[in-house]
Amino acid sequence: MSRLTGVGVSSGRASGPVARVADPLPEPSATPAPTDPAADAARIRPAAEAVAERLFERATRVEGDAKAVLETTAAMALDPALTSQAEQLVTGRSMPAPRAVFEAANGFAEALSAAGGYMAERARDVQDVRDRIIAELHGVTPPGVPELAQPSVLLARDLAPADTADLDPSLVLALVTEEGGPTSHTAILARALGIPAVVAVRGVLGVPGVAGAIVDGDSGEVETSEEAVPAQAAERAAAKEWNGVGETADGKPVKVIANVGSGADARAAVAAGAQGVGLFRTEFCYLGASEEPAVETQRSAYHEVIAPFAGKPVIVRTLDAGADKPLAFLDMGVEPNPALGVRGLRVAFDRPDVLERQLEAIAAAAADSGAEVSVMAPMVATVDEAAWFAARVRAAGLARAGVMIEIPAAALSAAEILGAVDFVSIGTNDLAQYVFAADRQAGALAELNDPWQPALLRLIAMIGRAGRELDKPVGVCGEAASDPLLAGVFAGLGVTSLSMAAAAVPAVGAALAEHPLAAFEQAAEAALAAATPARAREAVRTVLA
Amino acid sequence: MSRLTGVGVSSGRASGPVARVADPLPEPSATPAPTDPAADAARIRPAAEAVAERLFERATRVEGDAKAVLETTAAMALDPALTSQAEQLVTGRSMPAPRAVFEAANGFAEALSAAGGYMAERARDVQDVRDRIIAELHGVTPPGVPELAQPSVLLARDLAPADTADLDPSLVLALVTEEGGPTSHTAILARALGIPAVVAVRGVLGVPGVAGAIVDGDSGEVETSEEAVPAQAAERAAAKEWNGVGETADGKPVKVIANVGSGADARAAVAAGAQGVGLFRTEFCYLGASEEPAVETQRSAYHEVIAPFAGKPVIVRTLDAGADKPLAFLDMGVEPNPALGVRGLRVAFDRPDVLERQLEAIAAAAADSGAEVSVMAPMVATVDEAAWFAARVRAAGLARAGVMIEIPAAALSAAEILGAVDFVSIGTNDLAQYVFAADRQAGALAELNDPWQPALLRLIAMIGRAGRELDKPVGVCGEAASDPLLAGVFAGLGVTSLSMAAAAVPAVGAALAEHPLAAFEQAAEAALAAATPARAREAVRTVLA
Repeated sequence: MSRLTGVGVSSGRASGPVARVADPLPEPSATPAPTDPAADAARIRPAAEAVAERLFERATRVEGDAKAVLETTAAMALDPALTSQAEQLVTGRSMPAPRAVFEAANGFAEALSAAGGYMAERARDVQDVRDRIIAELHGVTPPGVPELAQPSVLLARDLAPADTADLDPSLVLALVTEEGGPTSHTAILARALGIPAVVAVRGVLGVPGVAGAIVDGDSGEVETSEEAVPAQAAERAAAKEWNGVGETADGKPVKVIANVGSGADARAAVAAGAQGVGLFRTEFCYLGASEEPAVETQRSAYHEVIAPFAGKPVIVRTLDAGADKPLAFLDMGVEPNPALGVRGLRVAFDRPDVLERQLEAIAAAAADSGAEVSVMAPMVATVDEAAWFAARVRAAGLARAGVMIEIPAAALSAAEILGAVDFVSIGTNDLAQYVFAADRQAGALAELNDPWQPALLRLIAMIGRAGRELDKPVGVCGEAASDPLLAGVFAGLGVTSLSMAAAAVPAVGAALAEHPLAAFEQAAEAALAAATPARAREAVRTVLA
Repeated sequence: MSRLTGVGVSSGRASGPVARVADPLPEPSATPAPTDPAADAARIRPAAEAVAERLFERATRVEGDAKAVLETTAAMALDPALTSQAEQLVTGRSMPAPRAVFEAANGFAEALSAAGGYMAERARDVQDVRDRIIAELHGVTPPGVPELAQPSVLLARDLAPADTADLDPSLVLALVTEEGGPTSHTAILARALGIPAVVAVRGVLGVPGVAGAIVDGDSGEVETSEEAVPAQAAERAAAKEWNGVGETADGKPVKVIANVGSGADARAAVAAGAQGVGLFRTEFCYLGASEEPAVETQRSAYHEVIAPFAGKPVIVRTLDAGADKPLAFLDMGVEPNPALGVRGLRVAFDRPDVLERQLEAIAAAAADSGAEVSVMAPMVATVDEAAWFAARVRAAGLARAGVMIEIPAAALSAAEILGAVDFVSIGTNDLAQYVFAADRQAGALAELNDPWQPALLRLIAMIGRAGRELDKPVGVCGEAASDPLLAGVFAGLGVTSLSMAAAAVPAVGAALAEHPLAAFEQAAEAALAAATPARAREAVRTVLA
């Protein structure tokens, strides 16, 4: 038995047998050359067939989209173009078989990416097939989430968005990761599923012979055991009823709205009862495109997302690209610290034409949607930048301009910035990263990126104060808004809308309706005065108990 | 004539003929192979001889260290081992001559670096010789500062520390750079020399046929001309007398102390009249070492720096390493954003033994120095981290523990942190980088990194307030402290010591003595209320006029 502590990111206590999510494979080596190339090449086809067979077998046991995805992936493994090209790389260029599969598959994936659109999305599937065949050739477990035979605690280095497509939520008792942070995909997923999760449990993957685990998503404690642990799901809080109107118990409005990045997200948000959209990420329209999409292409993509919200507010964020999220047509270059580089609105200072075309497309998509469309800019640091953006939004004929507050300087100038725009929206993920000088992606710094950190809450309090003084809306659209307990604290700090993944909407709506605003204000005061995130959580629970 | 605007970083107005600092050469291509390798190889020796001849010629016109440096470099160009190895790469491996010189010289430089110590410092000289020979082979101007025949305005992409060794201060009227920021080497150098400088003048290198320029280091305006402009040096402020005691006109103490990183720096600081050391960077003791230096080696290196300050305060900063400043023995790994990664005190959480040995060496060096030695940690984010560090400092028998405030979260928790330590010192360079999410090294973001940004000053005001409430010292040790006008603003914000490059000490001491503290407080209020750095400067000048 071994007891480790990480950062609890989703509440509750559960236990059960452990299933390990295999790590990504290292890139296969190009050396040494096979001693018998013909024999090495001959291993490829049977490996591909074994992979396809297992995928087809899994497909027989599921329905709908999942079935179609598994069948398509299986068919890809059997694609003779892929296997024969890999074989030729072994026989003709003396490459070891795993490397040959790697290179042949990458060639396919690149061609698909270059084709753009739907084809580009398939590139990920080719990489999945590639890794499965390579794992088969090496005789190791393929990377990703294993097929679960029983309810289990999932143990991973970190979960990638792609992993969750393979995951059956009814069989996952809890999530434990060695890396990741409170804003990682693992944390977001766990809160959406309502299961306990602890991230940044350093050393947990090194504990030998782990068979079972007890996970406490509140204290962040994980107890591993070499013996089997009976499955015990977390007591889910009795699903509280939410009437679909975001307000506190005494009727003070706090909008509960959704973060979306595609038409499918928009439909899910409507189904979850979201009162609108607080963050429409427009990057999906640009990704994989080798040239800037035409205004009409953009208009039609945006319209699909905006249209389901007729009569409701939708906040569209303009393009957020940078050296860390490069776009071929923008030629971003390499930066020593991409997160501190030319990204978000900063790109538009050199390329205002790209912003202007995007605003034109948004205005056109808004015109016949019936939704109340606003536009906001990412990565704004100063009041001058905010005013520059607002002028362009208004010139495009759009009624409401706002900015994200995700840079500490913008929080420190919130009153001036609110004087220049119609609203602000706090991006807690990036704001925490800069406030603590701690990379969101760095597992070792996950504790600093906790949205309950009092220093972060103090900065948010300044923004809330400025909003109340100027009587202008202050939203939160970082993933912190999906924490029902923290949502009340934000309301108490003066935040007027909370935007989150659709799955979290009902729970946050219900949590806001539980207490009057004065109680949330008292909770917020207690959180601001705490010295650590753990004490802040505890203090708020006490106030609201 | 062309008028451009950048960021004024050193005050004053000057004009004159322009001398261009040539850009670094791109890495020479390995292709195409020379059609006549023997003929190509034969070009190398004459090129090296031409380089050596020019260097010897320059050496005849200077004295002392500069003469020795030029002669050593010239001798290196003539080194037959270098030229014959380059020739062999051309004839034996069909490499173009410039590439052959590049590779042969790099082999030498690597061997020198690996040897460590004094030899490692010579690696830079080999690279200098390499670039001069390559430029000669290409028939282009060698990179770096040209030899000035008359007083000139220097125009560069950015200045590297090495460039300034070649620079005759008496012939430089002003500095203008296309890149760089207010904390760049260019800015520091200009303030130390007391000449006007404007950095981040985007597009200035693209203006055709520039012969002369008028430079305004206050407004940031640069006017270029195709015609000659007569040399006109900036009116240097009448060198004000400073009595060596850091205090305002009404006798409120504000210590004027120095940043040092070696024994030579320490002696220069004493000569400049510094009242002590506000930032002793200890990295010099570790750089180039393949293993951690022994405690006794550290003790003796620290002693050399501390000893000149008997009876005076010396603040030693513990090791500030990270993925951006890697040390071989710490095995730092690669990070996507090194500036937001595991650096400074964060390294010590995994390797407390390295910190403990450093504290032992500092305590031993302090014991027989007679100086009032304090120790502070870099990259502290929370009160828990500050308390963890202070406990270790006290356990090592050192009397005073403090922390740098260079992460916004630490500024937002300044009162709690000051409760756990004896003093804080604000690192304005990094603090600005995080507050504005703007890489210090990114020229395009230089305007954001201006220490006059009101959002940054507001954060510093919070720290100053906490210091006054708790009656504990608050220092500034970023390069912003070397700006005499800003120094008064800091005093007005509650800062009790200013630490800077030795060259700036007398000017800052004199500036503080010009006004009573109340005037600086009024100036600080005006700066906090400004919307932009330019308006903040202007408002402060008006108040203090």
